[in-house]
Amino acid sequence: MKAYEAVLAHIEQQILSGKLVVGSVLTPERDLAQQLGVSRTAVREALRTLQAQGLITSQVGAGPNSGTRIADAHSPALGKLLQMHVALSQFPIDDVVDARIMLERRNVELAAAHASLEDLAKLGIVLASMEDPQIGLDQFNRLDTAFHVGIAELGGNQLVIVLTTAVRQALAGPIKQASMKLTDYATFRADLIRQHRGVFEAVASREPARAADLIEEHIRHAYSILPMPR
Amino acid sequence: MKAYEAVLAHIEQQILSGKLVVGSVLTPERDLAQQLGVSRTAVREALRTLQAQGLITSQVGAGPNSGTRIADAHSPALGKLLQMHVALSQFPIDDVVDARIMLERRNVELAAAHASLEDLAKLGIVLASMEDPQIGLDQFNRLDTAFHVGIAELGGNQLVIVLTTAVRQALAGPIKQASMKLTDYATFRADLIRQHRGVFEAVASREPARAADLIEEHIRHAYSILPMPR
Repeated sequence: MKAYEAVLAHIEQQILSGKLVVGSVLTPERDLAQQLGVSRTAVREALRTLQAQGLITSQVGAGPNSGTRIADAHSPALGKLLQMHVALSQFPIDDVVDARIMLERRNVELAAAHASLEDLAKLGIVLASMEDPQIGLDQFNRLDTAFHVGIAELGGNQLVIVLTTAVRQALAGPIKQASMKLTDYATFRADLIRQHRGVFEAVASREPARAADLIEEHIRHAYSILPMPR
Repeated sequence: MKAYEAVLAHIEQQILSGKLVVGSVLTPERDLAQQLGVSRTAVREALRTLQAQGLITSQVGAGPNSGTRIADAHSPALGKLLQMHVALSQFPIDDVVDARIMLERRNVELAAAHASLEDLAKLGIVLASMEDPQIGLDQFNRLDTAFHVGIAELGGNQLVIVLTTAVRQALAGPIKQASMKLTDYATFRADLIRQHRGVFEAVASREPARAADLIEEHIRHAYSILPMPR
């Protein structure tokens, strides 16, 4: 194990055991280096990694909030890392599709139960924008992602939102590449719009089971048409 | 943006756009530093972070596999990071429980469809070990985690296995703490054993819907008894 990995392992263990909680101030670099018998460079490298992972934040200065602490905010680091792993296809595409169906069925069920009229109106605007025949493939794909992420947000489960967003955004690139290869993109796009509209209406009329079946059908249909690398 | 963050962003963008794929050799440190106008130290810090995230591997020497490449193996980094975020309670416990139910319902459904007799026999051994009244709380909790992770593995979806394992392992610490506070631990433990046995039998007799309902009931029961921090 390299020196910085030993520092990482030490801090991770303290997080898992509950010794370090949100807001905890970390042992100063110098003391940590001495305590673990490693160089300050090794400690600094470990801290950089933890920062990139969204687990710690550093604040310079001498105020009450200065120093390196365990992060208290929701960080985009986890979602980004999941996105990288999916983008590198370290998971078989069929497994990713199956996971997406599981996540999105749950999202529409929660959304059908919890979405306010205001939330639904916002999602309706995304949907209406997708129906504009003037927009190009790029813009359509961005709105498509926004629709699926928007439903996750209506569902309101913070962990499931992170997972859904990461999986959907990781697929945005491959979906775009595959869409460009379709010989009949117009029909495919019309199908997606009709399916989105059906999901939206089931959520708006508070029918969780129907919304779940419709989104599963929609996702399966899309992957059956798109020539994705397997 | 700090110099090492610029390097990170550059490499992440190349992964997302598909310019870097599994096995790709990264631009050498020196060239990357020059290209992005940053110090070699900044490049090195970015590479350390990517390595800790399981996205790249470095091999020293002069052989055909030497150099820094995009990792080709499934890395435990993603699961570990998810575990850290859940351990720090950056997600409300109710959301984590709800996500767990979603993941584990899917796992038992898949397991009921795919598990071989050999797989089931292995899971049966974990179950039998849990029923030994001689084992302590620590050992029982380890077997409990092994049972849930084992079912995920029987299901066979690589992405769902990573997510389930990370969520369950992240909860292992809090579950242990809460178990130690119970006044009637013996009854709680007997309930868990009976519920596990029920799930196992539904999976073994290929009843996905019943197995899914039983594991949801089991998870909800456990959290209704355990005094977890909210």
